[in-house]
Amino acid sequence: MIIPINLGEKSYDIILERGAIKKAGEYLGISQDRRVLIVTDSGVPGEYADTVGRSFENSFVFTFPQGEASKNFDTYRQICERLMELSFTRKDAVIAVGGGVTGDMAGFAAATYMRGIDFYNIPTTLLSQVDSSIGGKTAIDLGKIKNIIGAFHQPKKVIIDPDVLSTLSERHLKNGLAEALKAGIIMDTELFEIFERGEAEKKIDEVIERSLRVKKRVVEEDEKETGLRKVLNFGHTIGHGIEASIPFGELYHGECVALGMIPMCGEEIKDRVISALVKTGLPVSYSIDRERVKEALSHDKKSDIKGVTAVFSREIGTFEFINMTTDELMKLI
Amino acid sequence: MIIPINLGEKSYDIILERGAIKKAGEYLGISQDRRVLIVTDSGVPGEYADTVGRSFENSFVFTFPQGEASKNFDTYRQICERLMELSFTRKDAVIAVGGGVTGDMAGFAAATYMRGIDFYNIPTTLLSQVDSSIGGKTAIDLGKIKNIIGAFHQPKKVIIDPDVLSTLSERHLKNGLAEALKAGIIMDTELFEIFERGEAEKKIDEVIERSLRVKKRVVEEDEKETGLRKVLNFGHTIGHGIEASIPFGELYHGECVALGMIPMCGEEIKDRVISALVKTGLPVSYSIDRERVKEALSHDKKSDIKGVTAVFSREIGTFEFINMTTDELMKLI
Repeated sequence: MIIPINLGEKSYDIILERGAIKKAGEYLGISQDRRVLIVTDSGVPGEYADTVGRSFENSFVFTFPQGEASKNFDTYRQICERLMELSFTRKDAVIAVGGGVTGDMAGFAAATYMRGIDFYNIPTTLLSQVDSSIGGKTAIDLGKIKNIIGAFHQPKKVIIDPDVLSTLSERHLKNGLAEALKAGIIMDTELFEIFERGEAEKKIDEVIERSLRVKKRVVEEDEKETGLRKVLNFGHTIGHGIEASIPFGELYHGECVALGMIPMCGEEIKDRVISALVKTGLPVSYSIDRERVKEALSHDKKSDIKGVTAVFSREIGTFEFINMTTDELMKLI
Repeated sequence: MIIPINLGEKSYDIILERGAIKKAGEYLGISQDRRVLIVTDSGVPGEYADTVGRSFENSFVFTFPQGEASKNFDTYRQICERLMELSFTRKDAVIAVGGGVTGDMAGFAAATYMRGIDFYNIPTTLLSQVDSSIGGKTAIDLGKIKNIIGAFHQPKKVIIDPDVLSTLSERHLKNGLAEALKAGIIMDTELFEIFERGEAEKKIDEVIERSLRVKKRVVEEDEKETGLRKVLNFGHTIGHGIEASIPFGELYHGECVALGMIPMCGEEIKDRVISALVKTGLPVSYSIDRERVKEALSHDKKSDIKGVTAVFSREIGTFEFINMTTDELMKLI
């Protein structure tokens, strides 16, 4: 199935198909006289990068150590240096094969090498398949602040192959489901109901497709996050606050988003959301240090003196924006 | 005088006016509740950044050591860190006050901090006033390769104040005149004739304006250098080759471009161009190491296996593109 993302000159197709990774050469449509650098990390089964690499006559692989800690200036610079050593030109391309960290960083290198070369993304985690691989956000972390340096650089094509999820741990799978559930709560009642019935894993292909269609609608209307796209931050404001307040990696991103969504649901739907989270195997309560969460919230990069635009839902499939101060947010938790 | 650069949503005005820097607060139109980071270097008279800083209630200054050697990952990262320490948000802005290195680097930091915040440019060298401050190219160097990492990020406004040129050395002034002469040769006969009459310095305001109008035409037609914009590389292919083959800083960029233009002129105009260069006080011959120039040419970032698109002129005010191999270029030198 092809899901086109319509962004004028920057339009591209998402190819959603089981087994698609084996046809990367055909599906990406990169001519064989172009060179490709495949960027992957040590946590991704090497066979995926190898499979993609074999599709191209002139392919090279750059592997960095798995994990958010790699998403920094040093790794970014190493990718740029590798492109330079290989004398890549504007006609060549970068392909990410991995999760969100890989896509963000490879995408940022592609966005800035020679002021931008073509970027292709083959996400291999559910989280990146349903969320981060489309929309063109690329970034690295600096100090303690995630994604503070980056660029909008749309991929030329995205291949989403649900077969690769078979090598993912159960916890990583649920981590991705949290973002899909988010998409359901704010914009797709039927998607939410799949979770409510506890069928998310069984109907994973439909969950991916529906999540992508939500993201497509949002990104097409607001590529650069000046308005509507902020809706995708549903659960993320408090979620990021929790994520920043706990030891690194203690909870996964999706788990923090799960916890962050609950306070942003109206009383009318809160029980349904909690029940859907429980059925999905996502956390619904956690012991937090309120002072540290508050401290983290006040450093949110999307906030200003007047507070932050928070996303709230009072009815499944709908959302509203509310300006809230840190104190007001804390009262909800 | 206002010269508008029409690039759709990314359009902006260039304000060309003597004394304009003193009115930066009014002319840039940045509201006083926004914070601004002024990026400047140690070679720029401190009074310029101070003058601009006094125009804003919430201004901060970041000064880095003068020179191309600063245009690297480390300084770029330091600017980003400074923005982060100051908790700058997407609503705040960066202003460059300095030459091309300053504008390129401050612009790249602005392009990538939080995936892009507003950037304003106040170029203080003739080279940056007539050339690098407009067009939205930002970049840093990596290893020996200039401008290999960067982004297209158009400024929100550019202030060009010819009064600031009074603190520029004679050699730096001529360095900038080389790019203006380039603009004349390829696209503005009257501008070329000012040089031919030896009046470039006397008529500096007109030289700046005419150069900007040439650049405006080119950038408006081809923002991202996929076609016409390559014409601005006239003199630069061989010029960069010379620049890379000599000890760092032995010749200025404009001097290398001056030398690089001569071989790219048809016999019909070569004598006129050489005469104009001599009257401007720019070099017309230099002892080069042919092997090193050839080596540098073969690493040109705009080249590929088939060669490079070189710009040639057979008649003042006109140009043509020619695909040339390194060997063919060397024969011209």
